[in-house]
Amino acid sequence: MKLYDCEQAPNPRRVRIFMAEKGISCETAQLNIVQGDNLSDDFLTVNPRGLLPTLVLDDGTVLDESVAICRYLEETHPEPPLMGTDAVSKAQIESRQRHMEFEGLLAAAETFRNAFPRFSKRGLGGNVGEVDAIPALVERGQASLLRFYNRLNAHLGQSRYVAGDEFTIADITALCAVDFASVAARVPVPDDCENVARWHAEVSARPSARA
Amino acid sequence: MKLYDCEQAPNPRRVRIFMAEKGISCETAQLNIVQGDNLSDDFLTVNPRGLLPTLVLDDGTVLDESVAICRYLEETHPEPPLMGTDAVSKAQIESRQRHMEFEGLLAAAETFRNAFPRFSKRGLGGNVGEVDAIPALVERGQASLLRFYNRLNAHLGQSRYVAGDEFTIADITALCAVDFASVAARVPVPDDCENVARWHAEVSARPSARA
Repeated sequence: MKLYDCEQAPNPRRVRIFMAEKGISCETAQLNIVQGDNLSDDFLTVNPRGLLPTLVLDDGTVLDESVAICRYLEETHPEPPLMGTDAVSKAQIESRQRHMEFEGLLAAAETFRNAFPRFSKRGLGGNVGEVDAIPALVERGQASLLRFYNRLNAHLGQSRYVAGDEFTIADITALCAVDFASVAARVPVPDDCENVARWHAEVSARPSARA
Repeated sequence: MKLYDCEQAPNPRRVRIFMAEKGISCETAQLNIVQGDNLSDDFLTVNPRGLLPTLVLDDGTVLDESVAICRYLEETHPEPPLMGTDAVSKAQIESRQRHMEFEGLLAAAETFRNAFPRFSKRGLGGNVGEVDAIPALVERGQASLLRFYNRLNAHLGQSRYVAGDEFTIADITALCAVDFASVAARVPVPDDCENVARWHAEVSARPSARA
């Protein structure tokens, strides 16, 4: 199989870390989103939405979405489990994964995208034509990120990882959200979020974090 | 188990339809989001995020998120399958479900929420304090919905349902998105989207659509 990847972007990183945790490797192609490689005719033939990551299986099946790719890998490589092992844990991990996505990753993306000068006509990601950035979303996104950090901090005061006692896909999404928020969106973890800092140091020390 | 529900809102409807397709029923509590029932102290003790739907299991476990609730129900009531039966179908249905969510449901919610006078200080859903609506998001959301309809129309020219030959959770999300876009966000299916109209008539005729 072949992974269409982008080293700078948070969604491809989610899949790279997921694969590293499972011990999976495959052929990759690097595309630069800032330079618009994802909107090239060549890539749009693979994924007409123009979004990364995209995984193409050996039989040509295209999986065009981060969590869908993780789902496929979880099913084909069950160990170690990253998406739960019974009905309740699967549901709770999915819930926490989605909290990290909606509250963290989307807020970081919104804050970055609407402030980044080269994306002033790329207010939405992918193959959607020109969409003006909306400056008011930057301030809203910054406030959302502070709320995200504070909620995550409270949660991590009660549990080792984002969805309980085990490292899961929810930690992967949270790590990519925190790092993208800190660097690209310029909203770092607040000093008083000590539980987030403790957790971040622990998950960043895993070899997968460098994937 | 007990479902905290809201008849007017699209996310609780996703779970109601999912349950109806599975033949599951349970105790429900109706909350009115427009009146702010979801932000009452009573409900915030159940789900501190203040979001609906929320499912409380008999042992007190709280599932606070639409797709996580569906995942739990799929695991505990596998028939009929609505989220796939093997690695590839699970991934492809998840991908299509998320397309319907990000391209359709979120765009409809954005368009409605930022135009609805009573939500002028509730620009984001749930327990997040006062957040100003952003009028520019209405126009952007309307354009996103037209893009959503056109992509869905092209897709439904190739397959009976949103994720292939079988009715799945992707159809449920799409139906809730289309109806919420049409009525609440006031962006109905364009006349030239005949495949969407054909599909919409078919899925709306299922008994579950009235759940």
